[in-house]
Amino acid sequence: MRVNQQRLRNDIESNAEFGAVPTDEGRGRTVLTGSKADCQARNFFCERLRDTGLSVSTDQIGNIVGRWEPESADPNAAPVATGSHLDSVPEGGIFDGPLGVYAGLESVRAMQEAEFEPARPIEIVNFTEEEGQRFGGGLIGSAVAAGEMRIEDALAIEDTDGILLGDALADIGYQGEGVIDASEWDSWIELHIQQSKQLENENIPAGIVTSIAGLSRCIVEFSGEADHAGSTPMNDRSDALAAASEFILDVEQATNKRCDVSETAVGTVGRLTVSPNAPNVIAGTVSLTLDIRDIGYDSIESIVEKAQKSLDRIENERSVKTSIERLWDRQPVEMSDRCRSALHDAGITAGFETLDVHSGAIHDSKNIAEATDAALLFAPSRNGISHSPLEWTDWEDCAAATHILAGAIAELSTS
Amino acid sequence: MRVNQQRLRNDIESNAEFGAVPTDEGRGRTVLTGSKADCQARNFFCERLRDTGLSVSTDQIGNIVGRWEPESADPNAAPVATGSHLDSVPEGGIFDGPLGVYAGLESVRAMQEAEFEPARPIEIVNFTEEEGQRFGGGLIGSAVAAGEMRIEDALAIEDTDGILLGDALADIGYQGEGVIDASEWDSWIELHIQQSKQLENENIPAGIVTSIAGLSRCIVEFSGEADHAGSTPMNDRSDALAAASEFILDVEQATNKRCDVSETAVGTVGRLTVSPNAPNVIAGTVSLTLDIRDIGYDSIESIVEKAQKSLDRIENERSVKTSIERLWDRQPVEMSDRCRSALHDAGITAGFETLDVHSGAIHDSKNIAEATDAALLFAPSRNGISHSPLEWTDWEDCAAATHILAGAIAELSTS
Repeated sequence: MRVNQQRLRNDIESNAEFGAVPTDEGRGRTVLTGSKADCQARNFFCERLRDTGLSVSTDQIGNIVGRWEPESADPNAAPVATGSHLDSVPEGGIFDGPLGVYAGLESVRAMQEAEFEPARPIEIVNFTEEEGQRFGGGLIGSAVAAGEMRIEDALAIEDTDGILLGDALADIGYQGEGVIDASEWDSWIELHIQQSKQLENENIPAGIVTSIAGLSRCIVEFSGEADHAGSTPMNDRSDALAAASEFILDVEQATNKRCDVSETAVGTVGRLTVSPNAPNVIAGTVSLTLDIRDIGYDSIESIVEKAQKSLDRIENERSVKTSIERLWDRQPVEMSDRCRSALHDAGITAGFETLDVHSGAIHDSKNIAEATDAALLFAPSRNGISHSPLEWTDWEDCAAATHILAGAIAELSTS
Repeated sequence: MRVNQQRLRNDIESNAEFGAVPTDEGRGRTVLTGSKADCQARNFFCERLRDTGLSVSTDQIGNIVGRWEPESADPNAAPVATGSHLDSVPEGGIFDGPLGVYAGLESVRAMQEAEFEPARPIEIVNFTEEEGQRFGGGLIGSAVAAGEMRIEDALAIEDTDGILLGDALADIGYQGEGVIDASEWDSWIELHIQQSKQLENENIPAGIVTSIAGLSRCIVEFSGEADHAGSTPMNDRSDALAAASEFILDVEQATNKRCDVSETAVGTVGRLTVSPNAPNVIAGTVSLTLDIRDIGYDSIESIVEKAQKSLDRIENERSVKTSIERLWDRQPVEMSDRCRSALHDAGITAGFETLDVHSGAIHDSKNIAEATDAALLFAPSRNGISHSPLEWTDWEDCAAATHILAGAIAELSTS
């Protein structure tokens, strides 16, 4: 079985045209769910699936499934599924998501060319709104497929303009029928870029994930007073931005300290908005997001607790009001032994070294693992950079990881 | 001479309807230069001027002048001018600017009713883009009138969408002809709210400004790396927002320390933008404004120097790049003795106590003082709040300060 690196690259580079953003360095794209770029990326993916002889369907939440059911396969057998997502963060990279989608397709093409005969159907999936950039939270398509979220609730999620996810999908022609059910899959494997430097540093082309970190996402707000910057004395201010700055540094310090106990702990304030946000007005309110992750849930609890203590202290020391709301929490989850074994076997057969790693990033595989046996395979990321136009994985590494993916799917599809 | 409090209040409350914003508490408005609200406010002001028998003209930069030239006045004598501005910050209050404009008009009406006979014409002015919220910098109309800015340069200022100030004024029908020349005025007095608590605390209805603080406005930028919030270890981050947070606290601390030497020093980070500003992406870049003011310029220099040192330290300690640009600097300026005397006299005649104060906020009077004898009169601000819907001045205080303004204009217009 031979993966065609150039063919895989062509697909990923073609997909990178949709939502492409101008950058000084690297290659970026913005593909928000329901946007024109999302529609273009989906159209192109469906064409590629059909070109490969797969039947294509879309479910109510816009998940696209390409099904390969050759004569060797029992149509009633539980399929082996693979895939990832085509949406991106604003000004994200070209590999995060699309690599897994097109590696799945390339795996099928490689099997077809090798005249491999699976006993089970093989399905390739593009999940809707993995990044959660327009319809908050993320992992929505896979949550519905895994039975973690009701389809009615998912369709009713609103963006900041009050547009429903269901309507946004219908607008681009990608609200289909039914809902795919991941519990009907025999197994699932997703290939994704690692988004950290570990594989690159060890010079190993593939990482086999042992567990995916849990996550707590909080919204924190600071209310001060929007006074005149020139005429309000320093000792008489309620500056929401100075208060928020203290909080950001407190969280950074608490997380750094937690790393002494668990080096996989991370805490991030990535989004912050100031109101009224004018040069000559003291900040009246600040709203920010806090994102805390680790493979042990006790780390998350510990950092949230320290964030709460920081807010208490700031309220005492500055004349501002604060609030913290835990938007959602996700427990860490372990990957399936059976699927991980298939990946280890495939690495050995293909002659590529693999490394057991954890995933700090959450992926659709986290949801799918709740419904069926699931695994997650990583390809190296240059400098560990992702969610940025500088995100990069060498084409050789893309092909090597796809080779391992194809081998594992083949093994699972015959057992 | 008797100022009509209800008539003044009616004008200010009518003006408050333009650009009114919904608020839980207080009364807010957003009147950006060239907006529909700005057009409405200008139309209403011109009507009121004409109702009072004044001739109305608009110059190329949109400054509106209402001229009262009764038979007693020598048409060729240098006029006494008064006024302020009708624009606001986003979600600003209803007194900042409009009080001075309509107090000028009410002064003329009070003189007319008292059959007062000025020897000089009296002019009431609305200056364009005082707040600088759409076409950066602010004080643009008065800068042109004072010869501090060339009319061509002012008209060519762009907003963030690339729209020229000249075009924005033409769009609302307020790009007139010629340019008013403040050096041709005998004198200028502006009434404005104080925007600090001093007058309120002392329970005195009017403050006579001795000098207006200087200002340095800087743009500071932080460049890190927009990495994945989940998979980038804490010890391998270039977090632009954490770096900016340190800077904000350093500037606050440096300014607080400077207050030991000069208690009128203030330093503010009021605007901050994060990119890409997503919950699961480490901040790649942060841009913020730094606004430093004091009545002594050495304070400003000292705080800018400490801001620069903070950036040097942050660059050394964190893997981010920083830059600071001084957008503009304004020296402190003293008010005219002659005009201040007229205000003191008017306070005594009217039986209102006055207090000598400084102005931490910059006003159009700062520019006009470069061209002619100028003074600035303050009315109390409840809780010192301004640039906010909570901005408030009691109607009695508005009327008292207007009474003093009218008396001073009367004195200047007969000498």
